[in-house]
Amino acid sequence: MKTQATEMNKMLKSYQTVRSFSEMLVQPLNLEDFIIQSMEDTSPPKWHLAHTTWFYEKFILKEFAEDYRGFNDQFDYLFNSYYETVGPFHPRIQRGLITRPSVEEVFEYRSYIDVHMADLLESGISEEKKKELLQVLEIGLHHEQQHQELLLTDIKYNLSQNPFLPAYQEQKERNKPSAGASTYFELKSGLFEIGNNGETFCFDNETPLHKVWLEPYKLATHLVTNGEYLAFIEDGGYKKPQFWLSDGWSGVCKNQWESPLYWFKRDDEWHVYTLGGEKKLDHDEPVCHVSFYEADAYARWAGKRLPTEQEWEHALAGKKVEGNFAESGNYHPVSSGLHEDGPLYQTFGDVWEWTKSPYVSYPGNKPYEGALGEYNAKFMCNQMVLRGGSCATSSSHFRPTYRNFFQPEKRWQFSGIRLAEDVKRT
Amino acid sequence: MKTQATEMNKMLKSYQTVRSFSEMLVQPLNLEDFIIQSMEDTSPPKWHLAHTTWFYEKFILKEFAEDYRGFNDQFDYLFNSYYETVGPFHPRIQRGLITRPSVEEVFEYRSYIDVHMADLLESGISEEKKKELLQVLEIGLHHEQQHQELLLTDIKYNLSQNPFLPAYQEQKERNKPSAGASTYFELKSGLFEIGNNGETFCFDNETPLHKVWLEPYKLATHLVTNGEYLAFIEDGGYKKPQFWLSDGWSGVCKNQWESPLYWFKRDDEWHVYTLGGEKKLDHDEPVCHVSFYEADAYARWAGKRLPTEQEWEHALAGKKVEGNFAESGNYHPVSSGLHEDGPLYQTFGDVWEWTKSPYVSYPGNKPYEGALGEYNAKFMCNQMVLRGGSCATSSSHFRPTYRNFFQPEKRWQFSGIRLAEDVKRT
Amino acid sequence: MKTQATEMNKMLKSYQTVRSFSEMLVQPLNLEDFIIQSMEDTSPPKWHLAHTTWFYEKFILKEFAEDYRGFNDQFDYLFNSYYETVGPFHPRIQRGLITRPSVEEVFEYRSYIDVHMADLLESGISEEKKKELLQVLEIGLHHEQQHQELLLTDIKYNLSQNPFLPAYQEQKERNKPSAGASTYFELKSGLFEIGNNGETFCFDNETPLHKVWLEPYKLATHLVTNGEYLAFIEDGGYKKPQFWLSDGWSGVCKNQWESPLYWFKRDDEWHVYTLGGEKKLDHDEPVCHVSFYEADAYARWAGKRLPTEQEWEHALAGKKVEGNFAESGNYHPVSSGLHEDGPLYQTFGDVWEWTKSPYVSYPGNKPYEGALGEYNAKFMCNQMVLRGGSCATSSSHFRPTYRNFFQPEKRWQFSGIRLAEDVKRT
Amino acid sequence: MKTQATEMNKMLKSYQTVRSFSEMLVQPLNLEDFIIQSMEDTSPPKWHLAHTTWFYEKFILKEFAEDYRGFNDQFDYLFNSYYETVGPFHPRIQRGLITRPSVEEVFEYRSYIDVHMADLLESGISEEKKKELLQVLEIGLHHEQQHQELLLTDIKYNLSQNPFLPAYQEQKERNKPSAGASTYFELKSGLFEIGNNGETFCFDNETPLHKVWLEPYKLATHLVTNGEYLAFIEDGGYKKPQFWLSDGWSGVCKNQWESPLYWFKRDDEWHVYTLGGEKKLDHDEPVCHVSFYEADAYARWAGKRLPTEQEWEHALAGKKVEGNFAESGNYHPVSSGLHEDGPLYQTFGDVWEWTKSPYVSYPGNKPYEGALGEYNAKFMCNQMVLRGGSCATSSSHFRPTYRNFFQPEKRWQFSGIRLAEDVKRT
Repeated sequence: MKTQATEMNKMLKSYQTVRSFSEMLVQPLNLEDFIIQSMEDTSPPKWHLAHTTWFYEKFILKEFAEDYRGFNDQFDYLFNSYYETVGPFHPRIQRGLITRPSVEEVFEYRSYIDVHMADLLESGISEEKKKELLQVLEIGLHHEQQHQELLLTDIKYNLSQNPFLPAYQEQKERNKPSAGASTYFELKSGLFEIGNNGETFCFDNETPLHKVWLEPYKLATHLVTNGEYLAFIEDGGYKKPQFWLSDGWSGVCKNQWESPLYWFKRDDEWHVYTLGGEKKLDHDEPVCHVSFYEADAYARWAGKRLPTEQEWEHALAGKKVEGNFAESGNYHPVSSGLHEDGPLYQTFGDVWEWTKSPYVSYPGNKPYEGALGEYNAKFMCNQMVLRGGSCATSSSHFRPTYRNFFQPEKRWQFSGIRLAEDVKRT
Repeated sequence: MKTQATEMNKMLKSYQTVRSFSEMLVQPLNLEDFIIQSMEDTSPPKWHLAHTTWFYEKFILKEFAEDYRGFNDQFDYLFNSYYETVGPFHPRIQRGLITRPSVEEVFEYRSYIDVHMADLLESGISEEKKKELLQVLEIGLHHEQQHQELLLTDIKYNLSQNPFLPAYQEQKERNKPSAGASTYFELKSGLFEIGNNGETFCFDNETPLHKVWLEPYKLATHLVTNGEYLAFIEDGGYKKPQFWLSDGWSGVCKNQWESPLYWFKRDDEWHVYTLGGEKKLDHDEPVCHVSFYEADAYARWAGKRLPTEQEWEHALAGKKVEGNFAESGNYHPVSSGLHEDGPLYQTFGDVWEWTKSPYVSYPGNKPYEGALGEYNAKFMCNQMVLRGGSCATSSSHFRPTYRNFFQPEKRWQFSGIRLAEDVKRT
Repeated sequence: MKTQATEMNKMLKSYQTVRSFSEMLVQPLNLEDFIIQSMEDTSPPKWHLAHTTWFYEKFILKEFAEDYRGFNDQFDYLFNSYYETVGPFHPRIQRGLITRPSVEEVFEYRSYIDVHMADLLESGISEEKKKELLQVLEIGLHHEQQHQELLLTDIKYNLSQNPFLPAYQEQKERNKPSAGASTYFELKSGLFEIGNNGETFCFDNETPLHKVWLEPYKLATHLVTNGEYLAFIEDGGYKKPQFWLSDGWSGVCKNQWESPLYWFKRDDEWHVYTLGGEKKLDHDEPVCHVSFYEADAYARWAGKRLPTEQEWEHALAGKKVEGNFAESGNYHPVSSGLHEDGPLYQTFGDVWEWTKSPYVSYPGNKPYEGALGEYNAKFMCNQMVLRGGSCATSSSHFRPTYRNFFQPEKRWQFSGIRLAEDVKRT
Repeated sequence: MKTQATEMNKMLKSYQTVRSFSEMLVQPLNLEDFIIQSMEDTSPPKWHLAHTTWFYEKFILKEFAEDYRGFNDQFDYLFNSYYETVGPFHPRIQRGLITRPSVEEVFEYRSYIDVHMADLLESGISEEKKKELLQVLEIGLHHEQQHQELLLTDIKYNLSQNPFLPAYQEQKERNKPSAGASTYFELKSGLFEIGNNGETFCFDNETPLHKVWLEPYKLATHLVTNGEYLAFIEDGGYKKPQFWLSDGWSGVCKNQWESPLYWFKRDDEWHVYTLGGEKKLDHDEPVCHVSFYEADAYARWAGKRLPTEQEWEHALAGKKVEGNFAESGNYHPVSSGLHEDGPLYQTFGDVWEWTKSPYVSYPGNKPYEGALGEYNAKFMCNQMVLRGGSCATSSSHFRPTYRNFFQPEKRWQFSGIRLAEDVKRT
């Protein structure tokens, strides 16, 4: 019993830490900012706060807490995201049209659930159920941490729709020394193990551990910088179809892309919009808010390629998880890698690194059972894997086997570029 | 001087009355409700409050008030609606993405303008300028009253997007006696004068007074009721192309219309959503929230037609302006016409009556000079005239020569049907 | 009996003349040209040839000819255009996807119907039925003549989609003298009769004759020329929203209009595509292929306005129908009006003249009975009236009361501009 | 010299064989059928005939033939498909609007190129250039063979747009015995070589040969049949989101899919449209014209999965290329596998088998140099690999390492399903 209590206590503490962080993230917002959905990919902050809460209510309290009474029956409809097997849900595209419940009610909902979660975690529960509960709860916490990252990227996108570009927080000025140009670090070929061994938490899509043969390859020691990317732009990168995948070139033409998202020119000088407001383009910072298409085109222009996710994971296996994560409060890539241990720098945090790997299941993979099986598996098509976490990811949410995934045209995440190249076989 | 002062005082009082009414209308809202734009035709309540205020600032304070300092330079961009000649403006479709300025700042903006308007109206000003000022101010007040109607119709549409149909105010229950079936009142042919003689306020599109020859015609004594419209539905009205204009039938097919807007079936029984929440369909109420296409199809089904705007105006000339207007606080059509003077009933207020007249300029019409020339004239294409005011119109804003106009597919206004028919020539 | 025979013979001759003309119009085409539908508004030439034939089969042979056996049961589905009451029909937008029946079969269909029509018209038929038959047949002939105009405008649009701009026929070079600048001819106010008295053929939408009061007005003596329109372009006409109706300006922005349809610049010089191939812009020719929006914006830029259809008809009443019609084989506006009788020139033929009148029914109008009631009446919304016929109209199809109508954004018809202005009231 | 002549002669013979087959395929068409493009994915038969010809002209005659004069300068613009580096080209979506050149001219173009190709191949040419020429020519022939498959699938789609479903050829009736239910054949794990060793012709995307580790797996001995797929439909497969990838379910809802393409119900009985016209659904035939989404959903419903392309290739390595290919003239899947050698049946020909592998480059892959580098590489995103060839593929075009690829929603190819499953690790 004691162990259970301890384990439960520890979990409750984690729960409270995660929950507080969500609420801290929305502190700088006006109430008005909680409501809007500025494009199909984003959700209103209010919705994120409610949906993450609904996850615990639906998958934990209603399953494990005796005599639990739901907070509001309408919330199953309003705050289910995409679990088709759970029941009908409000169309994603219309999340920004729901002004009721109010933000205040959503905070009440959070409190209500927090109280009941604490009660549940402090109450006795059978060993059998405990294990199941803890498993779902851990998913729930990581789920909320994913939405914390989305909160930041969605708030950024929302505010950027305002022609006067309001800031979310103070600009964090720093004298970040340049790390100099990237070199390439070579890795040998071999049969390696990829995936998560399941000893610590991971999502279902990171399993099972499996063998992969890798040819020899080289990875860039540093991320591509704004300055390097600017050279691509100035060389006509956005005007030359030969660098682009066919779908990417269609995207360039259709969306009239001429630079990464959030870049704009004023008085002939490049600026970027950040959560700290606008500022002049810093040439030494890692380039950010590029789509897979742009990352891929840049690599082809540079005579290189993107790494596969297996190459990335193999090269970083065992490296300590440190970097410019959300806990730093920067919410912007800042690491130059100067004071890190090599041979690879800026690997964790800062920006998600696009890989050339489409998001598919690992050999022998089994999705979660039940509704949570929809969590990751049903998106295994038309998306590309990103690795490494970003400045909007919590380090406690991250592990090197983490597989993030987005459609190749998406740019509102903190996504950047690390190059790779083949080793010529002799 | 005394006369001027009196006139100015009177105008200030009107100003304050109109301004207060806008603020009263948004009293029942949550702060969240101020932000959203639920379709292209609607605007966020916050935007209405700011735009109507900007109108005075731009066209009066900046023109007539010495040393006036603008409240916020960004507002010219954000709160100009469509005056191309005034400068660039925020795209209409994106009004719901602007969370800053906050609602609070918009109220501060209103106060700031109100103070400066009071100062201006209480200060001395040359006779010459006074006349011009009063003319623009009167337009400004009627402009705000138009937006008050839009506030109500937009709030209704916004709230209706919520699947749980929240009410804006309490349901107003009333025992409204049925007026019985409509009969037809005949009017003789002749050469009549149509349009406004300009002795009291009117918009530029109501002038000049001009001659029109009318053949003999008959007008229905009452509005079409929900019960009568239901008979059309039950006779397959929405499934038989022969009743519909070609564009109307395309609309029926594309939008899958099966009833007026805000009607829905629950447990096989028709209900309607009103600003007082949902209720069962009242068969005696005037039918409301129909498009021109539906009004026209209904008329053809009934073997009648819609009146022209000239027929409507001629028949109602000289009738006292009384009816179920916004001042009643109903915001829903309620009049049965039982206690009115005939021969035509339910003529003013309740619902805007679609006419068969496209919105074009009167012969010899001159639009306002300058930017205000864009107020009405540039919409004279693809829109139909509606007459009579509605339950969301202020009676002080209305006169029988008033020409409202909307595209024939629009349904979110309080729009209904009065039938007409030809008199057979012998 | 003799009279009937004569009347029938005369009608048969008309029938054969109209039918031959359709076939003559498609002589210059490749078989491939018969098939395509290059935008929603156009139809494949094959379809026009079959649809006009189907009209006689459906409304005449199947109604009046004893023991008539249909040519092919599928044609009711394929070649009904929009008669909802007749039965289901192939979606308009998919007319270009139907390769079978072949063009050859369509010509066989035409012959088959022609033989049966001749048989019917040469056979005895009761007086009672004869009258009805002749009425429908006359509609059928005018219907085919309308489609002859569409054949020309659709072929032009189809061929213009080819980047190498093939010609339909030889360029007709002519030394057309300039008529000089337009002056304005004044007409007095009064109560006038408008509409067709029914003594010769007209469509249902031209009736009944009815009274209209007109204020005094002036009509331009000539059509607006390419040279005059070019001045509008060079003055930034397509870049200044103040000249445009709101919907027109949206169209300019959305479609990136910078000139009339078929104008293009090569080596900085304006050219136009005509059915005779491309040629340099002739400044003296009437401007053509403009939308209502462009006509209206041009008029506002010029400080004038477009005439109403009543003003147009009143001014031209009684003028002899002569001009540059389809019979001339030009299929391009060429008349300078120099040798015509005044005071108004270039009135019939050349280009359809946009009026400021929306297309609505005349007071007391009764559409045709039965399916033919769909012929004109169901389009009385969102369209503008054009008057005067064009170089693609047969003069035998035209009369001064003719009301053509198109949506205000359409440009593929031979549509041009005659200005009008108010007479200042004293 | 002799060897060269022989090699060149042999190549010329191959050239003539391939060229004749294209022309044989369009024999059953009406001239009208050559023109249309019935959806974005298809091209007009005329275009296929011209584009394949242009390929030889552009990449061979203009490169290798001295004093070669192009047939028509416009064809570089009209018949370049997507080679951005070669020059501008006509938008794909508008291929069906080009009626000139005529079909006849396109056949003349083919003859002209054939004559010059024969001249070139019969002339002496340096050894150095010969090698290069033969390489490009071999690509050109396989390129034309790819378009032969597209000719068949596009003609099928075009004709299916006709509501009366015309046949391309006679229905081929056959008594095909049922092969009975599928069983599963197990393959062991190991490190295997995948890809083409380059000893015979292959595309750039099949190289290089590279090592892949495979876990143990099982492959279905037979293709999924119509009867089996029908059980999925009848179990509500198209109505249950739990079987579908997220993008697939969106596709089902948006496109209202209820069965494979070309299935339709008449009198409550399932029929299919084939190039031989319509016929009743044959339960024993392999299911065909399903998207990847449907294949994947079917597999999940059946408790299985799709194979990876590596699993597929490894299992079929070394099997003789025999099956129901285009040479049979069936153009419809017919093989039951009954008389084939096992353990896997219906492997080559019949239908392309969707794999669960996204189309990406093999490790160390190098695209062709120059413009031909656009041939395959730029499509390596958002597409899935299909394996095995179909009834519309020429067997001379096929090899077991062949990687076909299409977007997961495409259905107009002859695409079907072979299931796989994991072997439980013990």
